[in-house]
Amino acid sequence: MRIALDAMGGDHAPGEAVKGAVEGARENGVEVVLVGPTAVVRAELDKYAPIGPHLTVVEAPEMVRMDEAPAMAVRQKKNSSLAVGMKLLKTGEASAFISAGNSGAVMAAALLILGLQEGVERPALATVFPTSGGPALFLDVGANTDCKPPFLLQFARMGNTYMQKVFSIASPRIGLVSNGEEETKGNQLVRETHVLLKASGLNFVGNVEGKDLARGVADVVVTDGFTGNVMIKVTEGVHEMLRAVLEQEAARGPHMALAISLFRPLLQTVAKRLDYTQYGGAPLLGVKGNVIIGHGRSDARAFKSALRMAKRMVEQEGKASLMAPVLDREATDTSGFTAHSP
Amino acid sequence: MRIALDAMGGDHAPGEAVKGAVEGARENGVEVVLVGPTAVVRAELDKYAPIGPHLTVVEAPEMVRMDEAPAMAVRQKKNSSLAVGMKLLKTGEASAFISAGNSGAVMAAALLILGLQEGVERPALATVFPTSGGPALFLDVGANTDCKPPFLLQFARMGNTYMQKVFSIASPRIGLVSNGEEETKGNQLVRETHVLLKASGLNFVGNVEGKDLARGVADVVVTDGFTGNVMIKVTEGVHEMLRAVLEQEAARGPHMALAISLFRPLLQTVAKRLDYTQYGGAPLLGVKGNVIIGHGRSDARAFKSALRMAKRMVEQEGKASLMAPVLDREATDTSGFTAHSP
Repeated sequence: MRIALDAMGGDHAPGEAVKGAVEGARENGVEVVLVGPTAVVRAELDKYAPIGPHLTVVEAPEMVRMDEAPAMAVRQKKNSSLAVGMKLLKTGEASAFISAGNSGAVMAAALLILGLQEGVERPALATVFPTSGGPALFLDVGANTDCKPPFLLQFARMGNTYMQKVFSIASPRIGLVSNGEEETKGNQLVRETHVLLKASGLNFVGNVEGKDLARGVADVVVTDGFTGNVMIKVTEGVHEMLRAVLEQEAARGPHMALAISLFRPLLQTVAKRLDYTQYGGAPLLGVKGNVIIGHGRSDARAFKSALRMAKRMVEQEGKASLMAPVLDREATDTSGFTAHSP
Repeated sequence: MRIALDAMGGDHAPGEAVKGAVEGARENGVEVVLVGPTAVVRAELDKYAPIGPHLTVVEAPEMVRMDEAPAMAVRQKKNSSLAVGMKLLKTGEASAFISAGNSGAVMAAALLILGLQEGVERPALATVFPTSGGPALFLDVGANTDCKPPFLLQFARMGNTYMQKVFSIASPRIGLVSNGEEETKGNQLVRETHVLLKASGLNFVGNVEGKDLARGVADVVVTDGFTGNVMIKVTEGVHEMLRAVLEQEAARGPHMALAISLFRPLLQTVAKRLDYTQYGGAPLLGVKGNVIIGHGRSDARAFKSALRMAKRMVEQEGKASLMAPVLDREATDTSGFTAHSP
């Protein structure tokens, strides 16, 4: 299995990207194609010499900066690391592509080079988050700030297929983010989407509230990209606040410092539950290919997780293509998985 | 100062409401008018006998249930505790009204009985939350699920006035919730509101992200009622998750149980920062009168905080009415506070 990785994407690229690739290729038993300016990437790779045949470099002289306007960057820089990587996926030279670069540009390149799956009007950025009942998928977390009800229905179908294939959940429970559990709650988008989801044949469990997500009330949690992005950032903020309070308190004296050191395993548990990046990036669903978008702040560990996630996505494709049209339920039903309840 | 309190509002009413009123009246040196069925309220009051003249009861035989349709309930039950309390505010027999009852019904009653301030198209529910730089106001957290840009501009002005008057901040920094700090980020509502806020004359500091709120980047944080409500519920969820993880870990053995007991003061600090109800309720801004809506789960402590908040709102009125038209900047400028920067 060959996975392409944008060596120049992310705040800590190419250093952490290459480090993560070296370690991730070995740990996951996959080939990694590093995409970027050959000389730069080789210089990083040399730090880990000798490098076996499971790590190769594909030349991409250009680079899209984090602050560039996505559509323009993709149109003008045909030889950027993210465009070249996407083309490797398109031609089948790679089975998945990972980038922690300018996420708008990665999405624009995916749309332009790979195109959308049948029946999909908008791609969605998804993130896997831990719950007390196992991993759940949350989408859209930033691809589409303004959505129409049919987009959210499509997100639900895309998420349903993903959780069936990648996490082997026969009939994923679909929840819709709202400001209350009652059917009548929500803004206009949510109320109209609720009606569509009820009639969709999916295992729709109704509206879910922000406070219920960590409890595992749904396997797929659907929202628009504005609300989803705001929600994960609130979680991030609480995580940071927790760390800051800890430091303040530890500074108060040996008593607190001792308590905090005893407490470390627990804090790690909490941090892990709050750290939505632990699953290694956000799959971009709805495009024709396995694309994973990493957090801009990705370190080597995050790149390794992304490789593990990519491997899993590709492995599950054998059972039934993740690229199958999400609106074709029959195709899903013949995949060897139990069909979702009507 | 006389403050009306809905004795029948909230999941733990009348018990906790009356208890909070008894303790809060004494601690804050205010008169509290308990509104509800006299016999029921008196029976609760008898538990704290003898009761001085600072606690009175006004008869309201009807009650709006938490699950009743707000508009209908307000139209049909003219003698409900929340309608009678609102009328005491309207006639000036009380300077503020507090209810932890059906929040939709409280809002409907406020609109019907008190009416909107000049220049305000929609009322907003606000909540005061703690930041490392002091208290900040977050609105709308649930009054309006679908908003237009002018509503958000009005929320900003209402929040500006509130923070000037109640927390004596001369020129409150106004932030707009978005999915990125850049001016181009946001959904259509946010992008259009951004333009209005820039031209508003308010001390607009730009877009803010969920992760920045606890850091105190703004004194007034504006969003629509859907997003705002979802955000506070995410915070609530993290809070609950933290507690659950603690219990799980403590059960693992004496080592963890010891660490957790040593850690209790820290946990309380964190819990307090996450507990958006500690300031005692959400002021309903934009209506002609001081209305505070408590959380449905309010206990005696929450009712006491609400009384403290109501007292503060009323006291600050002397300087310049909170009911002054929010669009009339001159009225604000003559209040004795420094005018916000242009």
